[in-house]
Amino acid sequence: MPHLVILYTGQLDAETNMKVLCRDLADAMLTVVDEAGKQVFPTGGTRVKAAQFDNNPQGGSEDYAFVYLNVRMGKGRSEATQKRAGDTLVEVTQKHFADLFAKRHIGITLQIDVGPEVFDNKHSNIHPLFAAL
Amino acid sequence: MPHLVILYTGQLDAETNMKVLCRDLADAMLTVVDEAGKQVFPTGGTRVKAAQFDNNPQGGSEDYAFVYLNVRMGKGRSEATQKRAGDTLVEVTQKHFADLFAKRHIGITLQIDVGPEVFDNKHSNIHPLFAAL
Amino acid sequence: MPHLVILYTGQLDAETNMKVLCRDLADAMLTVVDEAGKQVFPTGGTRVKAAQFDNNPQGGSEDYAFVYLNVRMGKGRSEATQKRAGDTLVEVTQKHFADLFAKRHIGITLQIDVGPEVFDNKHSNIHPLFAAL
Repeated sequence: MPHLVILYTGQLDAETNMKVLCRDLADAMLTVVDEAGKQVFPTGGTRVKAAQFDNNPQGGSEDYAFVYLNVRMGKGRSEATQKRAGDTLVEVTQKHFADLFAKRHIGITLQIDVGPEVFDNKHSNIHPLFAAL
Repeated sequence: MPHLVILYTGQLDAETNMKVLCRDLADAMLTVVDEAGKQVFPTGGTRVKAAQFDNNPQGGSEDYAFVYLNVRMGKGRSEATQKRAGDTLVEVTQKHFADLFAKRHIGITLQIDVGPEVFDNKHSNIHPLFAAL
Repeated sequence: MPHLVILYTGQLDAETNMKVLCRDLADAMLTVVDEAGKQVFPTGGTRVKAAQFDNNPQGGSEDYAFVYLNVRMGKGRSEATQKRAGDTLVEVTQKHFADLFAKRHIGITLQIDVGPEVFDNKHSNIHPLFAAL
C-alpha cells in the first residue's frame, strides 16, 4: 500500500477523466487472483493514486502526453500471477486511452515492482472488515 | 536521502498534526544505532517528507484513512539493525495514531527498503558540520 | 519512464532555476551512450520531473537546502554505462549548483536505481517518431 501510483502529464486532465481510470484500475485489481483462485490485492488495502507529472519533454513537442503506472506488489507471487496482474491493468489502461491514442501523441508505461523491502509492518483496523468476505 | 517519505490520505490533516509526526519520526531516526553503537541515519542528512495521498478507496467508505511510511536505507546494514530501525519508527507511529486508531478506520503500513541503487553520489557541505559530533 | 525524478527543498525556487536544471539534465541524458555507442535513454521517452520536498530538517537550520535526484534505468546495462550516466548527471548538477554551493548550506544526492520491475509494458506512438534518428 499504495499498490498503484500513476504519474501523468497535466494536459491530460482536459482530455480524459483520470478519476475514472483510477476507479476502473482499482476495480480491476480486485479481480486478480493467484493460482489458487485467491485474491491478490486485498479489498481493504488496495489503493490507487494519480498525480500530475511536470512535463519536461525532450526531442519533441511540449504537447506529448505521458502516463506512467507503477504497481508495488508483495513478494512471493508467481511469475504467472505477476503477468496476469500486469495484463489485467494494461487492458484497462489501453481501453481507457484508446480514443486518445488514435488522436494524439501519448506514451504509456506500466511497470510492476516487487519492492525491495526488508521490513514490513501493518497496523490496520480496516483489513479485518473484509477478512470474512 | 530522503530517508523517510510518508503518503497519507488528506482527511487526516483535520484530525492530527502530521508535522509533529514528521518531527517525532526524524528525532527517533537519529536515535537508531547499529551493533557497534554507531548512528545509522546521519544527523546532517536525515529527512522526513509527508505528502497527501489522493484517496481512491475500494470496497468501503470514502472516509477510510491510510498512512504509508517508506524508509530508504543504505545497503550493508544487518537484519538486526533494519529491524531495530523499523521497530523504533513503528513505535513512534503507533503512539502518534493511538487515539485516532481507537476512533476511526485507519490502515498504517511502514516499509523499509534497501534501495536498488547502482550509482550513488553525495555532494554536501552540511554533513561536515556534524562529522565531529 | 520517468527516468529522472528530482525532489528539492522549496527555498531553492527563489535562488536557482530548477526548470533550467531539468532541461540541462534531460539534454545530458540524451548524450549518454553505451559501449556500442548506442543512446542509453531514448529520445522519445526521456522525462525529468522536479517536485518540491517538504523540508523537515534535523539537527540544524531550517534553511539547509537538499536536492535528491533519482534516476530509474532499465536492466541489463553494464556497470561502466551506469557510471557514465551517473558521472554525466553529477557533472551537470554540480555545475548548476556551483555558485549556490559556495554561498549556502546544501546537500545534493544523486542515485541511479535499476528498478525491481517484474512486468514492463510500453504502449506509445511517440517512440516510433524517433526510431529512424
